[in-house]
Amino acid sequence: MNIRFMGEPIVRVAVLGASGYSGGEVLRLLLGHPGVAVAFLGGSGSVGGTLGDVHPHLAGTGAAELRVRPTEEVDGVDVALAALPHGTCAGLAPSILERGIRLIDLSGDFRLPAAAYPEWYGFVHPAPAWLDKSVYGLPELFREQVRTAALVANPGCYPTPVALGLVPLLREGLIGSAAVLVDGKTGLSGAGRSAAEGLAYSVSEESVRPYRFPRHQHTPEMEWALELASGAPPAVTFVPHLVPAVRGVLVTCYAPASGGATTRDLRKALESAYAGEPFVRVLPEGAMLDTKRVRGSNVVELQAVVDPRSGTAVVAGALDNLVKGAAGQAIQNLNLMVGFEETTGLPVAGVYP
Amino acid sequence: MNIRFMGEPIVRVAVLGASGYSGGEVLRLLLGHPGVAVAFLGGSGSVGGTLGDVHPHLAGTGAAELRVRPTEEVDGVDVALAALPHGTCAGLAPSILERGIRLIDLSGDFRLPAAAYPEWYGFVHPAPAWLDKSVYGLPELFREQVRTAALVANPGCYPTPVALGLVPLLREGLIGSAAVLVDGKTGLSGAGRSAAEGLAYSVSEESVRPYRFPRHQHTPEMEWALELASGAPPAVTFVPHLVPAVRGVLVTCYAPASGGATTRDLRKALESAYAGEPFVRVLPEGAMLDTKRVRGSNVVELQAVVDPRSGTAVVAGALDNLVKGAAGQAIQNLNLMVGFEETTGLPVAGVYP
Amino acid sequence: MNIRFMGEPIVRVAVLGASGYSGGEVLRLLLGHPGVAVAFLGGSGSVGGTLGDVHPHLAGTGAAELRVRPTEEVDGVDVALAALPHGTCAGLAPSILERGIRLIDLSGDFRLPAAAYPEWYGFVHPAPAWLDKSVYGLPELFREQVRTAALVANPGCYPTPVALGLVPLLREGLIGSAAVLVDGKTGLSGAGRSAAEGLAYSVSEESVRPYRFPRHQHTPEMEWALELASGAPPAVTFVPHLVPAVRGVLVTCYAPASGGATTRDLRKALESAYAGEPFVRVLPEGAMLDTKRVRGSNVVELQAVVDPRSGTAVVAGALDNLVKGAAGQAIQNLNLMVGFEETTGLPVAGVYP
Amino acid sequence: MNIRFMGEPIVRVAVLGASGYSGGEVLRLLLGHPGVAVAFLGGSGSVGGTLGDVHPHLAGTGAAELRVRPTEEVDGVDVALAALPHGTCAGLAPSILERGIRLIDLSGDFRLPAAAYPEWYGFVHPAPAWLDKSVYGLPELFREQVRTAALVANPGCYPTPVALGLVPLLREGLIGSAAVLVDGKTGLSGAGRSAAEGLAYSVSEESVRPYRFPRHQHTPEMEWALELASGAPPAVTFVPHLVPAVRGVLVTCYAPASGGATTRDLRKALESAYAGEPFVRVLPEGAMLDTKRVRGSNVVELQAVVDPRSGTAVVAGALDNLVKGAAGQAIQNLNLMVGFEETTGLPVAGVYP
Repeated sequence: MNIRFMGEPIVRVAVLGASGYSGGEVLRLLLGHPGVAVAFLGGSGSVGGTLGDVHPHLAGTGAAELRVRPTEEVDGVDVALAALPHGTCAGLAPSILERGIRLIDLSGDFRLPAAAYPEWYGFVHPAPAWLDKSVYGLPELFREQVRTAALVANPGCYPTPVALGLVPLLREGLIGSAAVLVDGKTGLSGAGRSAAEGLAYSVSEESVRPYRFPRHQHTPEMEWALELASGAPPAVTFVPHLVPAVRGVLVTCYAPASGGATTRDLRKALESAYAGEPFVRVLPEGAMLDTKRVRGSNVVELQAVVDPRSGTAVVAGALDNLVKGAAGQAIQNLNLMVGFEETTGLPVAGVYP
Repeated sequence: MNIRFMGEPIVRVAVLGASGYSGGEVLRLLLGHPGVAVAFLGGSGSVGGTLGDVHPHLAGTGAAELRVRPTEEVDGVDVALAALPHGTCAGLAPSILERGIRLIDLSGDFRLPAAAYPEWYGFVHPAPAWLDKSVYGLPELFREQVRTAALVANPGCYPTPVALGLVPLLREGLIGSAAVLVDGKTGLSGAGRSAAEGLAYSVSEESVRPYRFPRHQHTPEMEWALELASGAPPAVTFVPHLVPAVRGVLVTCYAPASGGATTRDLRKALESAYAGEPFVRVLPEGAMLDTKRVRGSNVVELQAVVDPRSGTAVVAGALDNLVKGAAGQAIQNLNLMVGFEETTGLPVAGVYP
Repeated sequence: MNIRFMGEPIVRVAVLGASGYSGGEVLRLLLGHPGVAVAFLGGSGSVGGTLGDVHPHLAGTGAAELRVRPTEEVDGVDVALAALPHGTCAGLAPSILERGIRLIDLSGDFRLPAAAYPEWYGFVHPAPAWLDKSVYGLPELFREQVRTAALVANPGCYPTPVALGLVPLLREGLIGSAAVLVDGKTGLSGAGRSAAEGLAYSVSEESVRPYRFPRHQHTPEMEWALELASGAPPAVTFVPHLVPAVRGVLVTCYAPASGGATTRDLRKALESAYAGEPFVRVLPEGAMLDTKRVRGSNVVELQAVVDPRSGTAVVAGALDNLVKGAAGQAIQNLNLMVGFEETTGLPVAGVYP
Repeated sequence: MNIRFMGEPIVRVAVLGASGYSGGEVLRLLLGHPGVAVAFLGGSGSVGGTLGDVHPHLAGTGAAELRVRPTEEVDGVDVALAALPHGTCAGLAPSILERGIRLIDLSGDFRLPAAAYPEWYGFVHPAPAWLDKSVYGLPELFREQVRTAALVANPGCYPTPVALGLVPLLREGLIGSAAVLVDGKTGLSGAGRSAAEGLAYSVSEESVRPYRFPRHQHTPEMEWALELASGAPPAVTFVPHLVPAVRGVLVTCYAPASGGATTRDLRKALESAYAGEPFVRVLPEGAMLDTKRVRGSNVVELQAVVDPRSGTAVVAGALDNLVKGAAGQAIQNLNLMVGFEETTGLPVAGVYP
């Protein structure tokens, strides 16, 4: 290979929960990352298998023969990226962190205040002290905190575009926070690698379905992320929908525009907030979002319009739930934590069509 | 054939705009309707072709050899169903109606007050007197008017579930009308039979896209239908989205619940409004809507939930845009107009999976 | 309802294996059939549930409240249609038939000679005497035998178009039988209602996969059906493929054209064999098959071409695997068995688009 | 950026026909290639637009502001990659090559002997001298010739897996060449960026369609490539099919196994032919091909099985038609021509799911 990663130490990384879709996407991206060596694969049901067994699309890569080991044996790495089922990482995190391994958790286990876990995740948080120290890993909003964090809570796929789209508007008082409505649409990979009948092709093709309303656990995460970043505690109503796609999240957010704010005001706030951000693209006025355009990339696209008839601000965001909504954002956080250029190993071009 | 249609006159019907998707679906359903003879096919570009040429999936039916004639030559029929491009039927309607042919218009040409046409459809309405006499053909809300109408404006695919879902709640004061938000999702057949690049498979698979906001012409139709049926003139913000499906419309409507109205109150109002309606199914509490379940059927499914955290009422409706959202509803209107049993020729079972 | 079924006795029917996709499609079609009353639903895991529970898309039909009972309790019906897993009906059939109930088996349990079962289905056939009496229910080839049969083996989805496409050519000696190659493509509903990970939407979208070669149990069925109908025992190589669709089977059959046979000869043989057949459509010369066009209908489309460069005859057939490939063909057999018009309750128009 | 391309000259590249799907994929991959600078975009209808206009998914890349210029103005580059409509490059090539620019043509214009063009492409070849000098750019079979070629004919998407799958078997005499049947399945991006009604989502979802048989121009290319590489001139019958997917080609090839050749013999020949090839993966025995697994990667997967009942060898191959079937293979050729490591800038991991 003619590619060299110059002047930077190679970082040794573990991927925990390697067999799922998010774990597979973390691995696909890390295997093309010039500053990282994947040194440990952690799993449970897949222990003993090779990466090529668990993810046949990675069979041709350099790590294809690496074998999955029990997650709790993780060692000898600088950073662990955990793509475990909700409720698993919270228990494992303390021992990992105490071994000096920095941790990026892709699950929801370190995203909310401790008090919210019983209601939204169904468990009492076992590591509240670490929870207090965790940083919400949305680099465009919390970049400096991420750099030095031992424990990063990688955001959810829906809250990422909601926070990126609404925080600049809340900060500038362009929209009200009292009644934020979020209508979400997601492809089916968001439900994870699973054999559930409801996720079968025959069931899902030609099917548009709302789900888990009003109890989706991203609802309090949206509220918390918006409050953290803007100071205003909003009330969010969130209805997610499954659509017949594999990748892609599109959120359409509705809030009253404040004090005569116009489309132009909203767009100016977004453009100014994200000028120079490599992974946030505020679309030109009049352009239409499209989840397909960002598929496979770490980019989130944003658009904002005020309906002049009703005075409602509509802010929409689109991303690939497995990249900017999970694995890609985790690697963006990793880059920040270890001092790499933030964009290293992360595509800005979607795989289209 | 062993099937007989007893004791009813056979109604002679014309289908104008026979070559599009709505026209094709009207024909598919009419060809299985025991009380109707399809006597005239009207078109423009397809004139001279047979039904089997224009719609190869209908090549095995009894009308396969019927030839398309110029739309304006329509004659010798009792009722005409027009599935023409917006702006076409408005000009043709007077001469058709004056020949004593009753007319069901599937386009938007007779749905709004005359004053709305320049802004939303881009033309000055050429037949305002007929427009005044037209009946908005949503049978569950305007059944008696439809029976005797000479001219029925068949509703749009989005306004149908919005009106059916919200009118009973508005009538009972369970939701506010000042700020109704409608988030719509549609499959691509709603855009019609077309060769546009934006509707190509390679462009549309894995693509979720908002479109035509805030200028979709169904926005004033929703407002008008809600006002007609409930008395209250609401302000609607409507954002439609394309999803990768062929058939299916799902609308998710958001409005503040009034005076402590609960999920139970909303559901009771819907169940009571639609008890006995063959084509409206209020789902059991907790059940999830699914556009796929009603595909190919004339049924609209409704569900309502109040989010107890935010006090927002969420009312969702699902239908097949080509059946209850177009051709099926037109035939339901036809049945009412000519005195057939309302369900004749209309499926209640979806084609699943 | 204004529809009447005149001058025919109403036939009482049981559907066994009611909860699967084939069972659901049998029910959807039977519920629109004017000469049939569905009197018994048989199942195993779904016992006690209503039809509306098991198949929510049938919740609005007249039989929605009928409850599923244990399959073996079937009684009080004239005919049973069994859509059970392979290996189940063979054991149940004798006791059903001995009660005087005629049986249409949609599984593979009565399609092959007894000697073939251990190799291809993995069991020794428990009812070889009934197997000898069973009739292969491909009406276009074995119509007279079906009329009087007590036990009909409803053909497989792949063998149906293969037999219909090749038998007339074999009978007239237009193709050789020594090396028939069949390349099959199927949508995923053919795999049944299942929660297998391999059938998940995320796994199946954008996926074209050969499967179960060279051991697919339809291989000997094709050979047997071709031999039964044409006298010549052919050797078939069959490679099936999964494609990202729900419904639809397309088979592309390759065999050497004999003695200078041309496209015209093949087409003439097919047209002459199926003149007047309501459910077989030989496409016009040059026209392209399309599984979508026959979706939801009981039609099989056929096309034949001889490649002048290589002298290979290519015969292709398309059908809806759940209709002409399963439930529709079963009802076509039912109609023949009880003396109804053969087309009763069976659509010839596809649901398009 | 921390990535450096060491010790190699930067190669200046033109992409002609930049606005189509193949051109877009060439650009997506080149923009991530560390040794290449995209210096010229050539087009016709899109002249004057930026790369970001023409391919919005590339709007965030470094070349987003590069403008499309008339194709014939290409200059100042070392190599041109041409993804032009068939029949265009043949006319332009001489003047490009005479300017000293090396040319990789992704169209069919330089793949066949001159005599074949009138019949298969409908034109008399305008540059037969250059055609004689062109090299068929299938690196695994013609690597050394590619290195020094001025003009490379990049192979078609179907012929690539057919040649890779069959050549080792023909060379070792394991299959007969007299009657090779190729059944191809492709996603719709193979038809290019187009607004044809036949490629619309509503037309293509749930649609499996054979097409262009027996006149597909890849038929003689398969014969020619097999003959070039193996010496034996085979007779190929080729039936391509469209399936509802965007990317992916799967070919299923049938030929008689020679002299008792077994699955094991075939697999051994393939494994030995491609040992060490980074972009050819012979699947383990019993494993199933899947186009989805190689989507977005430059890998072709192969599998071979002899049906012991019929003695037919079945050899199947899968690739991404836009990568190994077009743009990726072109860059593999580019790497060889300019002396880069052959794998530079080319992914081996698919984007899954």
